[in-house]
Amino acid sequence: MQNILILGAGKSSIYLIEYLLHSAQSKDRMVSVADIRQEFAAEKIKGHPHGLAVSINIHDQAERVQLISGADLVISMLPPPFHPIVAQDCLQYGVHFITASYESDDLRKLKNSIDEKNLFFLNECGLDPGIDHMSAMRIIEREHQAGHRILSFKSYCGGLMAPESESNPWKYKFTWNPRNVVLAGQGVAKYIESEQVKYIPYHQLFNRLEKVHFEDLGEFEGYANRNSLAYRKIYGLDSIPTLLRGTLRRTGYCSAWDIFVQLGMTDDSYLMELPKMATKKDYLSAFLPIFGGYGPEDRIRTIIPKASSDDLSKLRWLGLFSDELLPVMEGSPAAVLQGILEEKWQLEKRDKDMIVMQHIFEVETEKGIKRITSSLSCFGENETHTAMAKTVGLPLAIAADLLLDGKIKIRGLFIPVKKEIYEPILHSLESEGIIFQENEKLVS
Amino acid sequence: MQNILILGAGKSSIYLIEYLLHSAQSKDRMVSVADIRQEFAAEKIKGHPHGLAVSINIHDQAERVQLISGADLVISMLPPPFHPIVAQDCLQYGVHFITASYESDDLRKLKNSIDEKNLFFLNECGLDPGIDHMSAMRIIEREHQAGHRILSFKSYCGGLMAPESESNPWKYKFTWNPRNVVLAGQGVAKYIESEQVKYIPYHQLFNRLEKVHFEDLGEFEGYANRNSLAYRKIYGLDSIPTLLRGTLRRTGYCSAWDIFVQLGMTDDSYLMELPKMATKKDYLSAFLPIFGGYGPEDRIRTIIPKASSDDLSKLRWLGLFSDELLPVMEGSPAAVLQGILEEKWQLEKRDKDMIVMQHIFEVETEKGIKRITSSLSCFGENETHTAMAKTVGLPLAIAADLLLDGKIKIRGLFIPVKKEIYEPILHSLESEGIIFQENEKLVS
Repeated sequence: MQNILILGAGKSSIYLIEYLLHSAQSKDRMVSVADIRQEFAAEKIKGHPHGLAVSINIHDQAERVQLISGADLVISMLPPPFHPIVAQDCLQYGVHFITASYESDDLRKLKNSIDEKNLFFLNECGLDPGIDHMSAMRIIEREHQAGHRILSFKSYCGGLMAPESESNPWKYKFTWNPRNVVLAGQGVAKYIESEQVKYIPYHQLFNRLEKVHFEDLGEFEGYANRNSLAYRKIYGLDSIPTLLRGTLRRTGYCSAWDIFVQLGMTDDSYLMELPKMATKKDYLSAFLPIFGGYGPEDRIRTIIPKASSDDLSKLRWLGLFSDELLPVMEGSPAAVLQGILEEKWQLEKRDKDMIVMQHIFEVETEKGIKRITSSLSCFGENETHTAMAKTVGLPLAIAADLLLDGKIKIRGLFIPVKKEIYEPILHSLESEGIIFQENEKLVS
Repeated sequence: MQNILILGAGKSSIYLIEYLLHSAQSKDRMVSVADIRQEFAAEKIKGHPHGLAVSINIHDQAERVQLISGADLVISMLPPPFHPIVAQDCLQYGVHFITASYESDDLRKLKNSIDEKNLFFLNECGLDPGIDHMSAMRIIEREHQAGHRILSFKSYCGGLMAPESESNPWKYKFTWNPRNVVLAGQGVAKYIESEQVKYIPYHQLFNRLEKVHFEDLGEFEGYANRNSLAYRKIYGLDSIPTLLRGTLRRTGYCSAWDIFVQLGMTDDSYLMELPKMATKKDYLSAFLPIFGGYGPEDRIRTIIPKASSDDLSKLRWLGLFSDELLPVMEGSPAAVLQGILEEKWQLEKRDKDMIVMQHIFEVETEKGIKRITSSLSCFGENETHTAMAKTVGLPLAIAADLLLDGKIKIRGLFIPVKKEIYEPILHSLESEGIIFQENEKLVS
């Protein structure tokens, strides 16, 4: 009997666990789910005969070894800093290892040992990174094999609300780590345009948007991700003239968010000195000079002339011009802002989320330059079965299934940019409804 | 015979050394000047019979101890990280210690030992910090003694070019560490306005200016310094409603500089990937998206609508729209920018610099609210005898002289905010032509 060990039973593990429990039945496998809170694991296994909920303190080596040494495969849903410890144990006990996290330098250092032990270590096999790699590589390799040259590749992804749940002016709620959303884009964004490396500082990021259209869903806007340059190497596009990766938001979100950026409200580098019993207006005012008699809206317009009524109405909806008390009164500007947003951008009972991804290629062919647009939209079913959990969890589950079925035969340290890996995973994802719609047209 | 040891014989030590050599003659003192490059010391002493040029490797304890143990007073012009080492030696050998640098936590830890040994350790006794403290405290203590309440205190300082040397469109050349000028203001600026703590992020700093007028010199603009809040305590103004410290530039400098900030050209956090034999235009273009066919000036205007013709002409004067090769082709955006500026903002042979400082107080009196404006302007004589060297060096020299004359009698760790220190120093500075012009008028 094959044993799968899943470490971490947080929100995004639901589809992963359910898929593997389902296939375990016919394949005579056992799925152990370990979490520091055993009840999280139990809730998701729901007494399935092929599932086992266990508790684990990941810092306790004996506990770790006991679980890992008995497994054929470990899937780690733990926070990234734990991966190297678990990977080391897997290596020692000859256990395969899969995660949805970025391949770290610590993992790369293990490459030779992984090869020697003939194990399969796969990282970046979730949504982004994960489905983005696989779906892009399928097109890139197909076009390269046809002898075409890829001139431009732009790729966007966003974790948003399904249209029926876009029930606030931002058309956004938290389906992901709120802190990461508040700090998103800090540092510099790097990309390449017409063979020139370009840099966008954080305070320009939400002002340099590209419109992205989905046939069934309408308009979105994309802002550049931190480092698109690294993807030249990952995708074998070392001399591509234009390469950009970005994040999608509903149109209007970015220009309102940019007010926070412009005023310094997303800064996480210092602790604020706020008055006692501070209100949301006090917080906002700390970033606005006093112009005798003028209210916060006029002061914002003076400092940020481009601030529109729509932008300001989004701030008003958050209560920023009101005397409501701050939910979080201590910390950095970013921490206080996060407190306000967590209250207002909370998922409600019947909310459904949505994942959108779009690749836009410009490819030189014998007939001219064609544009390929490949789009994915995936919708959550309810507040536990989210599109986020589905698109992160299913690629992991499918990779595990294929590996234990013997359908992935290569061994070593990988991310899913190899055909032997991405092709069968994409195929199985399609059976689960995760399907890219592809369009092609000649543009010159 | 009293021995003074000056550590560091860089550009800003010329007035310090000359003043102390001059007074050494009548007072039978010896002035030793130690530098890692002995010739720097010798150049400044010029064979004066009361001067001694020595070489020192500050990392060599034996060399240090030999020099320090024989001195009555050490004046350290070394970079701030060396001060704690030297201070420790001074403590051990019972030697007084004076610097123009900020009082560090390391120095504060020595406070009790300094008291026990009955020594005089004085920091922040240059221009800024230094003359700013002393001149402000004279007014603050005078107004407090008159029973007045200080409602507002704004204080500005700038190291600029004398009017006859404002010979470029920026009206600025380097009279100070170029790297510090390029990185100036990074982080967040904090100040207090009408009892509200206010924060200005770096990317807003050069856009939030106050006009500052000097009767003889005309208009300047001031941008806020990093942390004005700390000065509430230093100046005994704990409950002052408005307190701001700022840096002065000639009108027009800041809005042009803001283009660099907005485009991310002052970022020092990453290394650029520039083409081989990169031109200044290539460098600028790395921060500008491509709008088919448009040149860099139009692209700047599109991204930064407020960019004026005057702003752009300052960039053009630096060669940023040209095919001139970059003087520095590797490094961070800030390092490359510094390379361009160092070439263009170099002092020429007959250039004279200028220090400007202005304190603006609003004070509640029995007759109403009065505004006190206290202004200093100080001009360099030539490219070695700069106003910068004069205003940094003379307060140090005078403090040393007064101490050895027995005219400063207090002992302990200080910055010059105590009357026993600032009053005689300001008095002697006046004899050297460093004189504040004070105006007062009722404003309501």
